[in-house]
Amino acid sequence: MQVVIIGSGNVAYHLAKAFTQKNIPLAQIFGRNKEALGKISEELHIPFSSDFLEDADVYIICVSDSSVENVSELITKKDCLVAHTSGSLPKEILAGNYRKSSFYPLQTFSRTKELDYSKIPFFIETENFDDQKLLTDLASLISENVMESSHEKRKYIHLTAVFACNFVNHLFSKAKEISDAQEIPFDYFLPLIDETVKKIHEIEPKAAQTGPAVRNDQRVLELHEQLLKDESLEIYKTMNHSIKKMYDLE
Amino acid sequence: MQVVIIGSGNVAYHLAKAFTQKNIPLAQIFGRNKEALGKISEELHIPFSSDFLEDADVYIICVSDSSVENVSELITKKDCLVAHTSGSLPKEILAGNYRKSSFYPLQTFSRTKELDYSKIPFFIETENFDDQKLLTDLASLISENVMESSHEKRKYIHLTAVFACNFVNHLFSKAKEISDAQEIPFDYFLPLIDETVKKIHEIEPKAAQTGPAVRNDQRVLELHEQLLKDESLEIYKTMNHSIKKMYDLE
Repeated sequence: MQVVIIGSGNVAYHLAKAFTQKNIPLAQIFGRNKEALGKISEELHIPFSSDFLEDADVYIICVSDSSVENVSELITKKDCLVAHTSGSLPKEILAGNYRKSSFYPLQTFSRTKELDYSKIPFFIETENFDDQKLLTDLASLISENVMESSHEKRKYIHLTAVFACNFVNHLFSKAKEISDAQEIPFDYFLPLIDETVKKIHEIEPKAAQTGPAVRNDQRVLELHEQLLKDESLEIYKTMNHSIKKMYDLE
Repeated sequence: MQVVIIGSGNVAYHLAKAFTQKNIPLAQIFGRNKEALGKISEELHIPFSSDFLEDADVYIICVSDSSVENVSELITKKDCLVAHTSGSLPKEILAGNYRKSSFYPLQTFSRTKELDYSKIPFFIETENFDDQKLLTDLASLISENVMESSHEKRKYIHLTAVFACNFVNHLFSKAKEISDAQEIPFDYFLPLIDETVKKIHEIEPKAAQTGPAVRNDQRVLELHEQLLKDESLEIYKTMNHSIKKMYDLE
């Protein structure tokens, strides 16, 4: 089975790396950015091109949501399976006469960061049973955690991930902004952050909640509000309001 | 040196346990809740009382912020050092004729969760150099990470912790609310959450930001808003607005 990856960003790179590590040969990595493709090609020993799309059985499109449709039009072959890797797009966004599917890895990909691909959940949606089996088998070569998922469900998976990953990371950025301004090393907070996350592997996050809002400690809440402004203050108020609502404190 | 811990909650328990594990005898654990004290006393082999406060050199008050002042009045001895463990109170809240101090462990304490106490940063503020040395030495028996900190600085440390721990945990609660409603197991998100936190041990959170807001992907942002309501929608809008502001996208 010939597999081509389209794209040269973080998802393309890590997916290509995951397959390569398992000795699954990729027919090509294809994209616009020759420099990025060249680097991936050199590191992972995969042929690359910006001009000629290799003939393949499966094409996995790893580009930004807004480019998926345009890129999908480059595949003129009919007897093939095309998958996008977006959490929020329907498989029908793919604009060609091939079989359409979604191949969604639930992870945050940074270029420089080593990942254990076996732990990444893959959510797969296809048009028929044979394709479902094909993509499930393919994903199972790199991950222990492969599941079917409709577009409707995938939208909520992506949304949950935005709360649990993107917003959490932004809170770390805002926290660091506060500590940096006071010349307090952000490293001091890493054991606390690690523990916060370890906890939810063992108990429900709702049961693990601590802090002034869940204690309804109005004195501390007001003190903190005086120390904050702009977006930080908005986040502070919004989060505390939501915490109080969750525990019926207001 | 005789040390007494006052309180029977999570901070009192874990601090008592940290000292006990290092074979540092505690003279007493004192508080109102006899049942809770009895359990701690039995597990850690520390004398307890709800009536008679033992004579000691150091009293560490581990009660909620709103009770610190009242509890501190129970200590009538003059030649002793009294510390509270609050992140937001000044040491002057302690209402007695003894030497006053703050002994603030930066960690989130749950009763049932094992902790590596050696990694917990302790922030210490006292009235004089001798007391600073005394409490620093005491904390250093259980932690590798002991620092001096003024009340002003401590307020910001606590505030940073609210963002990096309390709010992060609440995002996990809201994420789980979303996935539960769709019958998507929250366990699927744990590798993503673990990776989100591992990342910031290696790169700045600001450089690690991913997601629709930092990509300024208006289509996904609007799609997600349609899936949300009430506090979840407020959080969604507030966080994305703050992300866009941080990256000059609006």
